[in-house]
Amino acid sequence: MTDLNRRHLLAGAAAGTAAALTSFGAPTARASVAPAGAQAPGFYRYKVGNYECTSINDGARSFPLPDTFVTNVPKDQALAAADAAYMPKGMVTVPFNPQLINTGSKLILIDTGNGVANLEATKGAVGRTLQNLAAAGVDPKSIDVVLLSHLHPDHTNGIRAADGSMAFPNAEIMVPSVDWAFWTSDENTAKAQTNEMMKNYFANVKKTFAGIESKVTKYDWGKEVAPGITSIATPGHTPGHTSFAIASGNSKILIQSDVTNIPEFFLRNPDWHVVYDTDPDLAQATRHKFYDMASAEKATVVGFHFTFPCIGHVEKDGAKYRLVPVAWNPVI
Amino acid sequence: MTDLNRRHLLAGAAAGTAAALTSFGAPTARASVAPAGAQAPGFYRYKVGNYECTSINDGARSFPLPDTFVTNVPKDQALAAADAAYMPKGMVTVPFNPQLINTGSKLILIDTGNGVANLEATKGAVGRTLQNLAAAGVDPKSIDVVLLSHLHPDHTNGIRAADGSMAFPNAEIMVPSVDWAFWTSDENTAKAQTNEMMKNYFANVKKTFAGIESKVTKYDWGKEVAPGITSIATPGHTPGHTSFAIASGNSKILIQSDVTNIPEFFLRNPDWHVVYDTDPDLAQATRHKFYDMASAEKATVVGFHFTFPCIGHVEKDGAKYRLVPVAWNPVI
Repeated sequence: MTDLNRRHLLAGAAAGTAAALTSFGAPTARASVAPAGAQAPGFYRYKVGNYECTSINDGARSFPLPDTFVTNVPKDQALAAADAAYMPKGMVTVPFNPQLINTGSKLILIDTGNGVANLEATKGAVGRTLQNLAAAGVDPKSIDVVLLSHLHPDHTNGIRAADGSMAFPNAEIMVPSVDWAFWTSDENTAKAQTNEMMKNYFANVKKTFAGIESKVTKYDWGKEVAPGITSIATPGHTPGHTSFAIASGNSKILIQSDVTNIPEFFLRNPDWHVVYDTDPDLAQATRHKFYDMASAEKATVVGFHFTFPCIGHVEKDGAKYRLVPVAWNPVI
Repeated sequence: MTDLNRRHLLAGAAAGTAAALTSFGAPTARASVAPAGAQAPGFYRYKVGNYECTSINDGARSFPLPDTFVTNVPKDQALAAADAAYMPKGMVTVPFNPQLINTGSKLILIDTGNGVANLEATKGAVGRTLQNLAAAGVDPKSIDVVLLSHLHPDHTNGIRAADGSMAFPNAEIMVPSVDWAFWTSDENTAKAQTNEMMKNYFANVKKTFAGIESKVTKYDWGKEVAPGITSIATPGHTPGHTSFAIASGNSKILIQSDVTNIPEFFLRNPDWHVVYDTDPDLAQATRHKFYDMASAEKATVVGFHFTFPCIGHVEKDGAKYRLVPVAWNPVI
C-alpha cells in the first residue's frame, strides 16, 4: 500500500532503537499524534448592517426524552420526531445559544446560557458561554448590557460566574418587566409550590437575582431597548417572553428566543406544546403569528434552541413550518 | 431606558474630559469594542469509533451563476434552486471541506482544498485549509498521508504551500490510479485543448504534480488504502473519482467526495448535471447508486461541497434525496 521512503526508513530505525532501549511494546513507524479530545470553539460571526453579531454556543444537552416533554401528543410521536432528526436513540437534544451584538457603541449579550457552574456537572455539555466568549476574544468586563428574553434558568444563570459573582461585572441587566413581575411575585411563588418545575423556576429567579434586584432594569415591549434593538411581545412560553428585532442600515434579523424550543419538534409541529411553557395555548398562537410574519418577510431568524450557529430562515410548509439553516460563511 | 450607575458616571466624566481635550465629536458613555472582522476558525471534530476526525473548512466561493453551471436544465431553474437556498441573489455558493482522520497511528488528510496561493486572490474566501489546520492545532509536518479523491484543482492544489513547496512535507500523496492515468495522458491532454475547462484541468494536474510524479502513490478501488479507510468506486465526476468508507469499531461513515457538487442543487435534483463532470450520465448513475446505499444504511455522509461542517444523513424523498445536516456537538 505504501512506498518506503527515506523518512519511513529513518523513523523506523529510530523507533527500533527506542524499542530496544525501553522494551515498551512493538515499535511503530513513527510517532502518532494524540487526539485533541475537544471540540472547536463554538462561536460564529455574522453582520447585520454595520453591527457585528456573534452566535455564542452555551452547549447542548441530550437527555432521555421525558414522558411529558411534549404535553399534548403521545410520547411515541415525539420519539419519532427525535429519531427523524437523528438524535441519540430515545433521547432529545436541546442546544442553547446566546447572541452577542456589537453595535459599534455598545456590546450587548442577549441571554447568558446555563451558567458556568453547570460546566463540570454536565461534563462540558452546557455552561460554555464564558469560554466561547473568551475564544471569540471577548472580555466579559467589556459587555455593556445583558438583555434577557425571559427568566428561565438556561437564559439567566450565566449572569453569575462560578463563584457566584457577576460574570459581566460592568453590564446593566435588563429583564422584561412582565416576566420580572410574574417571577418575583410572592403570590405566584406560593401558588407554584405544588408544581415541581414551576417551584424550581421561581426559586431559581430568587437565587439568581439575589442582592442585585435594585440593579436590574425592566424593559417593556415595542421599545428600542438598546441601540437598534427592539423588544417584541412573544408571550406564552413565559408571561413576559420577548423576542428582538436587530436593525442596522437596511438589514434586520429576528432573535426569536424561545418562540419554539427545538425546531425539529415545535417548528415542524407548531401546535405541539413543550412542557416548559407557562401558557401553551398562548405560546402556540404566538408561534403562528411570529412565523407567519417571519416567513412573509423572509426574515433571518435566530433561535436560542436551534442547533449552532442557530441562524436560518423559516418557511411555511402547509400547516407546518420548516427551518432552512444558513450556510457557514468563512468570511464576514 | 438605562439607569445611570457609578460606572456610567465615571466613564461619562472621562469621555467628557477627552472630548474637551480633542474636540473629536460627541463624547460617548464609554469606549466601544472594535469589531473582530473575522470569522471563527473553520474546523469541527467528530468521532468514528476510536478515530478522531476533523472537518476542515477550506472556505466557500460565491460567484454569479454561470449559464452552464447545470448543463441539462434551464438557467432559471438553477437560479430558483439557489434562491430557495438563500444564496446571494443571482449567485451560487460552493463550499470546500477536506477531512482529517486521526486513526491513532496515522494522520490522514483527505483532499486539500484550493491551495493557500488562492487565499489573497479570493479575499480569504478559499484556501483556508492550512490556517484552519493550524487553528485545530495540527502541524502540517505531522500529516502522514494526503489521500486525494480525484484530481480537480479544488481537491489537489492545497498540496502546495504559498511558495510552491510541499505543504505537507512528510506526507505520502495518494491518488486514484484511474484518475492519474486519465489526467496525465498526453493523448487526453491533446484532445482537451478545444475545451477551456478541461484544458485548464489537465494543465493544473501537470503543474501541481510537477517534480513529484515519482513520489505519488496510486491506489485502486475496493482496497484498504489507509488503516480503516476503504476506497469506493464512484466514477463519473472524473473517471477515477473515489469516495471512502471510514470504519473503526462498530462505527462507519462515508466520505462521498464529489458524488454531488452542492446538495441544494444536485442532491435535491440528482438528475441535474454539474458542468464539472467528465461523464455526467455516469455521475448521475453513481449518485443514485451511492445515495440509495447510504440512505438504506442510514449512513453518516460527509460531502466535500456540503456547507461546513458538511456532515449529514441522506434520505430518499421520492425520486429525489434530502440532506439532514448533523447537529453541532459541543463535546466529542
